[in-house]
Amino acid sequence: MIRRVVLLAALLFTSFHASSAADSRPPNIVIILADDLGYGDLGCYGPPTIPTPPLARMAGDAHPFPEFSSAAEVCTPSRAALLTGRYPIRSGMCHDQFRVLRNRSLGQLPASEITMATALKAEGYATGCIGKWHLGVWEFNPGGHPRRHGFDYYFGLPHSNDMNPTPAAPKGAGKLAEQEAAWWNAPLYRNEELIERPADQTTLTRRYTEEAVKFIQANKARPFFLYFPSTFPHTPLFASKDFAGKSPRGIYGDVVEELDAAVGKVLDTLRQEKLAENTLVFFTSDNGPWLIMNQQGGSAGLLRDGKGSTWEGGMRVPGIAWWPGKIKPAQTQRTLACTMDLFTTSLKLAGAEVPADRPIDGLDIRPLLFGTGTVARDAYFFYRGTRLMAARVGDFKAHFMTQPGYGQPKPDEHAVPLLFNLKVDASETFNVATNHPAVLSQIAQAVERHKATLTPAQSQLVEVQPLPEKKQ
Amino acid sequence: MIRRVVLLAALLFTSFHASSAADSRPPNIVIILADDLGYGDLGCYGPPTIPTPPLARMAGDAHPFPEFSSAAEVCTPSRAALLTGRYPIRSGMCHDQFRVLRNRSLGQLPASEITMATALKAEGYATGCIGKWHLGVWEFNPGGHPRRHGFDYYFGLPHSNDMNPTPAAPKGAGKLAEQEAAWWNAPLYRNEELIERPADQTTLTRRYTEEAVKFIQANKARPFFLYFPSTFPHTPLFASKDFAGKSPRGIYGDVVEELDAAVGKVLDTLRQEKLAENTLVFFTSDNGPWLIMNQQGGSAGLLRDGKGSTWEGGMRVPGIAWWPGKIKPAQTQRTLACTMDLFTTSLKLAGAEVPADRPIDGLDIRPLLFGTGTVARDAYFFYRGTRLMAARVGDFKAHFMTQPGYGQPKPDEHAVPLLFNLKVDASETFNVATNHPAVLSQIAQAVERHKATLTPAQSQLVEVQPLPEKKQ
Repeated sequence: MIRRVVLLAALLFTSFHASSAADSRPPNIVIILADDLGYGDLGCYGPPTIPTPPLARMAGDAHPFPEFSSAAEVCTPSRAALLTGRYPIRSGMCHDQFRVLRNRSLGQLPASEITMATALKAEGYATGCIGKWHLGVWEFNPGGHPRRHGFDYYFGLPHSNDMNPTPAAPKGAGKLAEQEAAWWNAPLYRNEELIERPADQTTLTRRYTEEAVKFIQANKARPFFLYFPSTFPHTPLFASKDFAGKSPRGIYGDVVEELDAAVGKVLDTLRQEKLAENTLVFFTSDNGPWLIMNQQGGSAGLLRDGKGSTWEGGMRVPGIAWWPGKIKPAQTQRTLACTMDLFTTSLKLAGAEVPADRPIDGLDIRPLLFGTGTVARDAYFFYRGTRLMAARVGDFKAHFMTQPGYGQPKPDEHAVPLLFNLKVDASETFNVATNHPAVLSQIAQAVERHKATLTPAQSQLVEVQPLPEKKQ
Repeated sequence: MIRRVVLLAALLFTSFHASSAADSRPPNIVIILADDLGYGDLGCYGPPTIPTPPLARMAGDAHPFPEFSSAAEVCTPSRAALLTGRYPIRSGMCHDQFRVLRNRSLGQLPASEITMATALKAEGYATGCIGKWHLGVWEFNPGGHPRRHGFDYYFGLPHSNDMNPTPAAPKGAGKLAEQEAAWWNAPLYRNEELIERPADQTTLTRRYTEEAVKFIQANKARPFFLYFPSTFPHTPLFASKDFAGKSPRGIYGDVVEELDAAVGKVLDTLRQEKLAENTLVFFTSDNGPWLIMNQQGGSAGLLRDGKGSTWEGGMRVPGIAWWPGKIKPAQTQRTLACTMDLFTTSLKLAGAEVPADRPIDGLDIRPLLFGTGTVARDAYFFYRGTRLMAARVGDFKAHFMTQPGYGQPKPDEHAVPLLFNLKVDASETFNVATNHPAVLSQIAQAVERHKATLTPAQSQLVEVQPLPEKKQ
């Protein structure tokens, strides 16, 4: 007993002594200095002035896919591919010159295409699309409406928010930080009903979010599929009162922070409604940043070029999966995955049959999501309109043609493709074609296999509604 | 009582029912699709293939400074500034043509300069430098040794690891992933003793780390200052057995992961020795990535250019502070801070007087570290050698001259400076000079105030030891 007391006293004294010494003496200092380490070399270093706490938490909870790819370099083809699981060349939702549907386009996602909404609705899912559609303009062609493609409910803009400039808009108005409502005449719809024109774009993200929350709450008794394609950060940029003028990054930062808060509200709602453990949430983007918008455009970080190009900056996008209890926290999947995989994977999760009467390019990535295995992908193809610009097999990407996203009318053709090892050189700066002739031939064979699966589809992006004749 | 039982039964039933419904029904799916969001726009998106868990945890525990700057664009001047708190133009540790000390240089950090080590040693600190010095070559000039500049203990290479190529080294050997030991004749010293030549560079990071751990353990009874300047990821790149060939990013990734593990071991040691709560650890880099090394060089992420340039990519570097219990977790300080501040701040923390007989450019950033306030910085200056290339006041940086890091012999001079708002446009792509004439004049005045504090210093980077005459 006495020994115990002595021991205790000694321990107390030591501990007191240690803590008093620690308090009175100045702190130790350790400086660790790397040599030539870059700002973009550490995972904890993202963009300097756009904090996105809900997305960071979502990424911390779940799988960020640092090699996630959109299926096209611009809006319409990318969205067509996401919803159908097929390269846009198969549905005709691409065109070399026009690139996307315009506000008077008559084309549409063909009725013969099966969307994720159609397939999930057939399994008893409630289906809602809240946001920017861009797969048909029902003002001129009713068949282009989301409700003709499997969605029960729709709220949003039919196309990009810069597609109805008024005569008041100055040239290059999308690039300006100071926007005027009178410059844009975008129509806002609920289902088939035009409810606001011009749409008040400053409150659009807030209203999309409210609609998303309501959709979740209204459909919590059954499985649901919510597709929430944000209108922003496509220019012109608008943020609501709570966000406008708050970000040091300017209006682009305001808009991204408001989108981030929207994600936070969706996740909060799922938690509140006790649905979190039965819901897969996936966050991604339709293509890379629109660099020609200057400060109003985003950044591709260390990647080369941006929106419009088949360089990685045009198509590699954030990909974050969240499913508490099912997806292990803080895992990273350094395997290529893409938006088309969301089609196939969602159908598998819902117990639906993946269509067998047509080529489907998306793969079932449940093994990647759940960390249970790998996924065998033959190759990945990078189209610009109808042109196959590049192909990836394993870590290597071969560019048969290259072209900046905007501003250069024709592609540069490469008799010997440019070859990059994307694992080592994500920025695509160091051509290693001469070192790897076998890889080039492997990629050429994959292209041949892919081409054998293609059947010509008529482009949906050509025809437009003529302007009404001016009154005399 | 009966009501309670019924209520309980109802609750149990509801809960059972809910959970059984959740188990049997397919999951909900939410896809949130941003429009034009870039890969580099989210904080959770760093480089795709270099995970750095200890550094991420260190950043999660503490302050990442997304606007942290080195004081120069290359090695020698940057290190001189860090240790003295002064722009290198004041100590002569810079030169327009030679840029850094070479392996036969006779110059040194002048004895009149007061280093952080000298100042802390005077306060009773144990002082150790483990790693690459590059402020004097004692083989030819004993005054250049770290122990002449306040360090009790030294272990490492006197200069960059590529500075003693042997005749066996092919041209541009530093750019090659496959290295041969016979190409480099770097000397490894313990204190003044040459212990290994050529140094086995494959085990260098492991040995630096072991030395750092030993230094901490040996000096735990008193305050200590450990300066740990890593030899890597400066090329040629070497990693130890446990890391070589492991990273998908190639040898550059291997080397960064080994450095990251070294940081982890230092932090673990501080925790084990119960010193964590009395130790400030700061991680940073001497300059940006060496882009001309191709795949063997790093990435500046969204920043423009790299090492050697006064674009942000050359000087903005990671800056991560760690001090459990003192620095609040997961805070970000979106205020400019720099390596020279570490001099002033360390002296303040140690209770030392900051030298009053000379201009000191570093500021006391304790308010930023502890989140207790702001720091008033008049301006920040970007030198390339002795040339003042650019200056920053607030969010704006004006470039009077620009020049890529390497490959262009003379700077481009700008009669009207290029002006960038770094908060909005960290990539320095969109010149806003015409919109902000008042900012330009404010910056011009700051430059005048700065120039008034300069007195000419002779460059230490010119004189070299002549090569011995060849035997006949």
